[in-house]
Amino acid sequence: MAGSETVAMILPRTGIGVDVHAYAPDNDPQPLWLGGLFWEGERGLSGHSDGDCVAHAAADALFSACGIGDLGTHFGTDRPEFAGASGVKLLGEAARIVRAAGFEIGNVAVQFVANRPKFGPRREESQRILSAAAGASVSVTATTSDGLGFTGRGEGISAVATALVYAVPAAPQSDSA
Amino acid sequence: MAGSETVAMILPRTGIGVDVHAYAPDNDPQPLWLGGLFWEGERGLSGHSDGDCVAHAAADALFSACGIGDLGTHFGTDRPEFAGASGVKLLGEAARIVRAAGFEIGNVAVQFVANRPKFGPRREESQRILSAAAGASVSVTATTSDGLGFTGRGEGISAVATALVYAVPAAPQSDSA
Amino acid sequence: MAGSETVAMILPRTGIGVDVHAYAPDNDPQPLWLGGLFWEGERGLSGHSDGDCVAHAAADALFSACGIGDLGTHFGTDRPEFAGASGVKLLGEAARIVRAAGFEIGNVAVQFVANRPKFGPRREESQRILSAAAGASVSVTATTSDGLGFTGRGEGISAVATALVYAVPAAPQSDSA
Ligand SMILES: [Zn+2]
Ligand SMILES: [Zn+2]
Ligand SMILES: [Zn+2]
Repeated sequence: MAGSETVAMILPRTGIGVDVHAYAPDNDPQPLWLGGLFWEGERGLSGHSDGDCVAHAAADALFSACGIGDLGTHFGTDRPEFAGASGVKLLGEAARIVRAAGFEIGNVAVQFVANRPKFGPRREESQRILSAAAGASVSVTATTSDGLGFTGRGEGISAVATALVYAVPAAPQSDSA
Repeated sequence: MAGSETVAMILPRTGIGVDVHAYAPDNDPQPLWLGGLFWEGERGLSGHSDGDCVAHAAADALFSACGIGDLGTHFGTDRPEFAGASGVKLLGEAARIVRAAGFEIGNVAVQFVANRPKFGPRREESQRILSAAAGASVSVTATTSDGLGFTGRGEGISAVATALVYAVPAAPQSDSA
Repeated sequence: MAGSETVAMILPRTGIGVDVHAYAPDNDPQPLWLGGLFWEGERGLSGHSDGDCVAHAAADALFSACGIGDLGTHFGTDRPEFAGASGVKLLGEAARIVRAAGFEIGNVAVQFVANRPKFGPRREESQRILSAAAGASVSVTATTSDGLGFTGRGEGISAVATALVYAVPAAPQSDSA
């Protein structure tokens, strides 16, 4: 093999995000928003936002991958405009912040743990909405904890996410044009 | 473009999988299958399958990385032939589905949380069996939850896995052969 | 630059690590070490080491990514010099072991789940210390479990980490020099 070789490696960065919300109390029922979707007739989660732990875990995994903090860093009390924001809006803003920090998003994967709702029939709808918000592939899956722990007792829902991002290479310098 | 450089980046995709099984009740004891291994004399897990949460988490992480659903999507009630399948068989089938969907597997890493069994002496054996099933490196590690939560109380075992996959590039077009 | 093209892909490996420590009992109070930092006035965690579950999860994720075991494998009873070691020291030694095994570290991301301490103001300090120990970027984030589970009840702290490593390519053979 003659001639020069160009070897480029863009090493992605991995991130992790966990998010948990308790069900809203009976005397203050809330609608359920999960995975960017409204779930009619399902008991909702509490939280200063819509409690969408799937979208929140995804956003946290993105921040984590970039090393730029977490939901509290970016949507804390100094940004009151996000106080009641939907998970989809938070995820979209997280993606914007990540790109403004010089990263592109590879993909995000989230799994939530809950007894309900039955997720399979709406999985692709959820993935479409969250992927559109992030501008990158967001996969969503579901499982139960087999009756164990706070998810098994139906006290709340937890979600865990992982994300890959990579630093955007500097614009190429044309060296011969 | 003459004298150009070709930079190829194949960005992998990350996935996440969580799986939990409760111990089988005393009046219906089961054998313990964990990490693809039979554990003689250990209390077994419940579940429609062999309850091998290590293998299940690995399979779920693979599906998650590809964005093609989860264990429920692929081994649900419409595939009764997997109703009582071993974790190793499920993981092998998951890897086959992932490849049929156009992905290759980088690696899978699983950690389970349990008070028992003592995993270290059989870790490499477990890794060999699961890696053979997946056709890719599967690493398995173990920890405890320091007596806390359902794993600490000995009610069940949880496992969390992450996986990297990448879309298989189209076969190269020979342009100058 | 004329001549042939070489396309190199270095596929990283992903790893996962979970670590949990209970708070030390009231009759045997401990200082809190978390994320490589001492937290004045905060209730400490129990454990044979300093109980720094953030550093431990990071180390476990590194081992997991390489498929070379876990904390128990490398810091077990046969290495008594690490019996009371700090999390920072363990993470540094884990990074050394990983490199000696032929891997380089891409990055590590850790999130811990706890009601306290308030992490934001010291996040960057924590990231600096852990990154220096690992010789690679370690991001640290925090969340709560909304009052649920053992973290919500204030019984302990859990942390989950993911890491990317890659096998160090063999030194290039100069084929024409
Ligand atoms: Zn949340
Ligand atoms: Zn299972
Ligand atoms: Zn520990």
